Amino acid sequence: MAYKPSIPKGTRDFSPDVVGKRNFIFGIIREVYERYGYMPVETPAMENLETLTGKYGAEGDKLLFRILNSGDFLDGVDKTILSDGDSNSLSRQIAGKGLRYDLTVPFARYVVQHRNEITFPFKRYQIQPVWRADRPQRGRYREFFQCDADVIGSASLLNEIELVHIIDEVFLKLGIKVNIRLNNRKILLGLAEATGVESDFYNFTVIIDKLDKTGIDSVMQELAGLNIDKKQLDNLKQIFIFEGKNEEKLNLIDEMLTGSETGQKGIEEMQQLLTYHGETGTRNTVITDITLARGLNYYTGTIFEVTAQDVAIGSLCGGGRYDDLTGIFGMPGLSGVGISFGADRIYDVMQEMKLFGDINPGQPKILFVNFGSEDEIYSLKALTVLRSHGISAEIYPDAAKIKKQMSYADTRKIPFVVLAGEEERKNGQYKLKDMSSGEQHTMTLNTLIETIR
Amino acid sequence: MAYKPSIPKGTRDFSPDVVGKRNFIFGIIREVYERYGYMPVETPAMENLETLTGKYGAEGDKLLFRILNSGDFLDGVDKTILSDGDSNSLSRQIAGKGLRYDLTVPFARYVVQHRNEITFPFKRYQIQPVWRADRPQRGRYREFFQCDADVIGSASLLNEIELVHIIDEVFLKLGIKVNIRLNNRKILLGLAEATGVESDFYNFTVIIDKLDKTGIDSVMQELAGLNIDKKQLDNLKQIFIFEGKNEEKLNLIDEMLTGSETGQKGIEEMQQLLTYHGETGTRNTVITDITLARGLNYYTGTIFEVTAQDVAIGSLCGGGRYDDLTGIFGMPGLSGVGISFGADRIYDVMQEMKLFGDINPGQPKILFVNFGSEDEIYSLKALTVLRSHGISAEIYPDAAKIKKQMSYADTRKIPFVVLAGEEERKNGQYKLKDMSSGEQHTMTLNTLIETIR
Repeated sequence: MAYKPSIPKGTRDFSPDVVGKRNFIFGIIREVYERYGYMPVETPAMENLETLTGKYGAEGDKLLFRILNSGDFLDGVDKTILSDGDSNSLSRQIAGKGLRYDLTVPFARYVVQHRNEITFPFKRYQIQPVWRADRPQRGRYREFFQCDADVIGSASLLNEIELVHIIDEVFLKLGIKVNIRLNNRKILLGLAEATGVESDFYNFTVIIDKLDKTGIDSVMQELAGLNIDKKQLDNLKQIFIFEGKNEEKLNLIDEMLTGSETGQKGIEEMQQLLTYHGETGTRNTVITDITLARGLNYYTGTIFEVTAQDVAIGSLCGGGRYDDLTGIFGMPGLSGVGISFGADRIYDVMQEMKLFGDINPGQPKILFVNFGSEDEIYSLKALTVLRSHGISAEIYPDAAKIKKQMSYADTRKIPFVVLAGEEERKNGQYKLKDMSSGEQHTMTLNTLIETIR
Repeated sequence: MAYKPSIPKGTRDFSPDVVGKRNFIFGIIREVYERYGYMPVETPAMENLETLTGKYGAEGDKLLFRILNSGDFLDGVDKTILSDGDSNSLSRQIAGKGLRYDLTVPFARYVVQHRNEITFPFKRYQIQPVWRADRPQRGRYREFFQCDADVIGSASLLNEIELVHIIDEVFLKLGIKVNIRLNNRKILLGLAEATGVESDFYNFTVIIDKLDKTGIDSVMQELAGLNIDKKQLDNLKQIFIFEGKNEEKLNLIDEMLTGSETGQKGIEEMQQLLTYHGETGTRNTVITDITLARGLNYYTGTIFEVTAQDVAIGSLCGGGRYDDLTGIFGMPGLSGVGISFGADRIYDVMQEMKLFGDINPGQPKILFVNFGSEDEIYSLKALTVLRSHGISAEIYPDAAKIKKQMSYADTRKIPFVVLAGEEERKNGQYKLKDMSSGEQHTMTLNTLIETIR
């Protein structure tokens, strides 16, 4: 019985053209990160579970892939735990490692572990896969790449504007027009204070965050459920529906936040960031979006979110400032800010908009047809010379029927074919066929090299 | 109590300079693979365990990292298995996935699964990490990269010579002088037949493989233990100690193998490969090494092994031909041949021989010193222009003491620093300091750009 091979659900094989396109995206992100002075770091796929657990909430803990301890993993396990049959208790005893769930927590762990080798402010980028035992669905995978950049050890808003420029430049190079949305958690906190719901801050942000999806009426209704008084609700609504320049929007919020120190600080930070932006500019649109909340609880200042202007697919890049990420690993007081590009969604947008050029990694420029014996050797020698000139080329490995060899060249979209049989060999020449025009010319090896170049 | 962060044993964090050096190695391998027409493929880190188990021998099965099923993994597990406390039986019930152990088996699985999309002969390369629960020791890690290239669907020896040229070119570009050792499993099988130990073929190859390490006397003694008669032992010894040209060595073996059809085929294949080599040449030394056996049982023809000429560190690259790799997944009769570069050992050799140039990914060419307020904006604007010209540059994010900023530039080995304070700003100029010579000159932004270029 033939066994039918498959891969775990939520994971993917990448064929050559997809690898090529993905590497194109990674290459642009990497190049821009490095031009802005960010340095690459890589961490292991596996982390000790104590590094991971408790960092992503109870829901996140459930989505960690845990690795069974090697060898006789039941040795020493309490018999009562076994007989209880409780997966959670047993899991803690038999699985001490887990797969990386994101790049932020491993980065925080890295910074603390290597603190003595690091010069702060430390600008690092990291492009690696992460794994989550999420229910797979369209656009959501159990293995996917994150492309993060963070700077840690500096509270300056110059870091924020640098990240805005990086976002701007990456999407410019990819050819995707985007809106770069900015907000500041301190403004949100100020609004919560001004409306008396600071104790319910998390729910407040979750409701506000839904504005694009559910609309203003539904959001106002939900906010009313938090017991915000009528006047404050009206003020909030006015801010949410305001359409105008970033600065005017900030002035409006400023009035509402006069009583909140945190809120004032948030306004001030946002104004500074907009000043930097005004002095340097971006090619993509920068929008102050007061309804942008982002789920992650560790953000404490600026937050970023990037959406495509022409495709509705959700966030392509996001991030924010966190004042105490490394505190959980015993190194408090280091402020940091970072962003993360979602390579899978970017790929989908570029596919949909047909933004990828002709990307065929490993596609040779020339195929030498194989006529066998002496002709084969004659072609092989020319092939060696071409390759030494940096020209990508190959010879069909078997002296198969010409039709089969030409069909191979067609399928792989190889633009040129060299036919060198007995006649060409005796004259020291090569017949070069242009596969798109069908034209063919006989020439010396030197001419062939120059023609191809 | 501060929790001290750490990573699982046998795994590594890679700091920026190490990532840069590793990417340099991967980049060369990738470039050469593609120039020779090999296309990139990537497979998931996790495979279904049924894909992996039984492919690496009993020892390999033990070294697989298994992933605990998600959710309530004990649900439905037989109570008696739990009470028996047998790790092996339980493991099969609670872990259905494992981490990739090598790139060859996932490649075979890929070929069978995607057979209808693939044009044969199929030339693919794959550069990805693999995981093995081996006992960590110097130079042996639990997570490491493999860099494989295979061609499948062609029995032609042109594939072998192509791989020899790839090996030659990669090491030439890396700057490591190597010996490329070639053998053919069929010759080894012929020798086993000629000496009457074909039923003990595996042990025969294991003994022969030890020749470099234990010396000729010890090997001959072990071979005598396999009950090979005196005359045959003398013949073998003569072959093993023969020092001369590849062709002469083959002639000597040929005489001994007249009675073995398989052996004759092996000689013929090796002669053909040496003919191809003679016509095209390599910059590194190619050696026919009859004692080269390589452990992997699935090799059936040519085998390769590459060692550095100047550093004793073991194999830097190896591979071979296998006649039926995809048979295990239900697609028999596809012949293939492949090689794999060991990036970690190559890294170690290059470190030891100081072959890495100046590799500092993400190191900016210029640091703008931050003088705060208006000067900061003035520098930020210039910085934006430099970056738009593709020049890697950054501004120190805080208006810290000059000494601290200069020390940051020193530590990151940034070659140039721009000091633009009030005076420069008022004159529309920038003071450029060369950090190695200490020289500094004041200039316009245009001159600055030209100077840096």
